[in-house]
Amino acid sequence: MNEFDLIARHFRPLAGVAGLDLLDDAAVLAPPVGRELVISADAMVAGVHCLADDPAELVARKLLRVNLSDLAAMGATPLGYLLTLALPRPLDEAWLAGFARGLALDQAAFGIALLGGDTVATPGPLTLSLTILGHVAPGCAWRRSGGQAGDELWVTGTIGDAALGLLALQGKLVDPNGVLAGRYHLPQPRLGLPLDGVVHAAMDLSDGLVQDCGHLAAASGLAAVIHAADVPLSPAAQACRRLETCLTGGDDYELLVAAAPGDGTILQRCGLTRIGRLEVGAGVSVLDAAGMRMTLPGGWDHFG
Amino acid sequence: MNEFDLIARHFRPLAGVAGLDLLDDAAVLAPPVGRELVISADAMVAGVHCLADDPAELVARKLLRVNLSDLAAMGATPLGYLLTLALPRPLDEAWLAGFARGLALDQAAFGIALLGGDTVATPGPLTLSLTILGHVAPGCAWRRSGGQAGDELWVTGTIGDAALGLLALQGKLVDPNGVLAGRYHLPQPRLGLPLDGVVHAAMDLSDGLVQDCGHLAAASGLAAVIHAADVPLSPAAQACRRLETCLTGGDDYELLVAAAPGDGTILQRCGLTRIGRLEVGAGVSVLDAAGMRMTLPGGWDHFG
Repeated sequence: MNEFDLIARHFRPLAGVAGLDLLDDAAVLAPPVGRELVISADAMVAGVHCLADDPAELVARKLLRVNLSDLAAMGATPLGYLLTLALPRPLDEAWLAGFARGLALDQAAFGIALLGGDTVATPGPLTLSLTILGHVAPGCAWRRSGGQAGDELWVTGTIGDAALGLLALQGKLVDPNGVLAGRYHLPQPRLGLPLDGVVHAAMDLSDGLVQDCGHLAAASGLAAVIHAADVPLSPAAQACRRLETCLTGGDDYELLVAAAPGDGTILQRCGLTRIGRLEVGAGVSVLDAAGMRMTLPGGWDHFG
Repeated sequence: MNEFDLIARHFRPLAGVAGLDLLDDAAVLAPPVGRELVISADAMVAGVHCLADDPAELVARKLLRVNLSDLAAMGATPLGYLLTLALPRPLDEAWLAGFARGLALDQAAFGIALLGGDTVATPGPLTLSLTILGHVAPGCAWRRSGGQAGDELWVTGTIGDAALGLLALQGKLVDPNGVLAGRYHLPQPRLGLPLDGVVHAAMDLSDGLVQDCGHLAAASGLAAVIHAADVPLSPAAQACRRLETCLTGGDDYELLVAAAPGDGTILQRCGLTRIGRLEVGAGVSVLDAAGMRMTLPGGWDHFG
C-alpha cells in the first residue's frame, strides 16, 4: 500500500462534507450565515508538548482539545479543523490508526469534522499542527483586552493537575489513581459556557496560571492580584502539597475570566471559582492566605 | 528579550485586523458575505521540502505560495493565513527577521494578512505549517473530479523548472543564470484566472505532472493521455535535455486544467498550453512525438 492510500485509509473517513473526501486541493465550506469566524492554530512536538511514548489516540485528542480550548476562550462554537502531520519514516500504520481513532472519538464528542490538511515526512520528531475553525455572534467574541479595574478573576475547573500529571508521568511524583496523568493527557475544553454579556475578558490557561494572568492583565492595561488560597485544587493536587507547581505549571486548559463583581452568582452556577481581581497598575501579585506576597519560582511573582 | 517579545516583534506587524494583533487566543474574521470559504493547509520540513540553508525570506515566500497555489487550483481568492512554526533552539533572530520580511513582501503582493498561529520549540529540523483561507462564489470552486471524457488537458506556465532547479542547487546540473533555482525557490501561484465556467476540473502540480495527472484522472473516473512533445518547457529546461525529469519532477505549482475542446481559445489567451486529453478508462499514458508510449522512471508510465 503506498503512502497516499495509507493516509486515505485512515483520514478520509474523518472528513466532513466540506472536506470533499480529502480528494481536492482545499476544503469548501459555507460559513454559518450571520456569524463571525473564530480561527486558531496550535502545534505539538513529540518530546516537547507530549511524551514520545504517549499513546497515539491520546496525542490526537490532546491536540484537538488544546485547539478547542482556544475556541472556548473566545466563547466560540466549533465547526471543523485542518491538520498537518510531519511523520518520521517508515510510517507506523498502527500509530496512524490509533491517531485517527482518537480524532474520530473527539470529533463525535465535539460535533466537528476534518476539513483537510497535509502529511509530510520528517527526519525529526513527530510534529503536529492543527487549525481549528469556529463561529460566534458578530461582535461577541471574548477578548483578553476587555478587563476593567475592579473586575473579579475566575477560573473553570481545578488548576495545576496537568503540571502535576506530567511530573507523575516522569516518575517524579506519586499519582495513585492516575487522575493527574489523565488531566495532562486529556484536557477538557470549556466550551459552551452561557456567559455572553458576563465575560469582560477571557483566555485559556496553557502557560501557567500566574503567567497567563499576566497576559490577560497586560492586554487589559491592568494589574492582577491572585489569592493563592482561593485557587481551586483537585483532591489529588491537594494531596501533592505543591502549590507553587500548581500556580505556575502549564497545560491546564481551563478558562480564566474577568467579570464584574455583581455577576458572581452566574459564574458560580457555571462552576467557576473566584481567585482574585484586576486593579489599576501592571503585573501580577500572588498573595498567600495571610495576604503576604508570595515569591514563586521562575520569577513570576511580579510578572509583566 | 524573552521569547514572547521576540515573536511579537517580528510577527505582530504582519497581523491584519482579524488577527487582533496576535494578542488573543484566536482570530475573529467576518467572512465575505455570500461567498464560500476555501481552506487548505500545507507543511514544510527543512531538509525535505526546502534546503537547510535556503534563505529564510525565500522559505517564507515559498511556504505562502505553495498554499496560495492550492487556492488557485480551486479558483479561489486569497483572504488570510495562519502559521505554526516549530523552531530549533536557540532562536535565531536574524532568521526570524528574514522569514517575517519574506511574509511581508508576499502579503503585500497577494493582498493577504496573518490571522494567527503558534511558535514552539523543536529538537528536530525547522518545521512549518500554514493554513490558507480564501473564498469563491457558492458552487463555483474548481474540483479535481469534474473532468469529462473528451476534455482537453491544459497547463499554466512551464513544467519541470523547479525539479531541475533543485538538481542545480544540489550541484547536479548547470543553471547558468539561476532561472531554474529561482523557480524552485519561488513558485508563482496562478491566482485570478478568469476561467469560471470553462474549467471542468483543476488541480495544482506539486508531485510531478504525470503523477498529478493520474490524480485528476482518477478523481474524474477517467484516463489521461499526455503528449510529451506538447508539454511546455522553458528555454532553460530545454537546454537541460532532461524531459523525463520535467514530466515527473515535483514543485511546479502550475495548474492542470481539464476543459471542453471548444474552449481552447480562451485557455490559450490566458497563457495555458494544451498537453493532452481525458478519455474513458483509467491511468495515465505518456506518448512521445511518434505517438509511442514512453516508459518513465518511478513507474509513472501507467500510473493508477
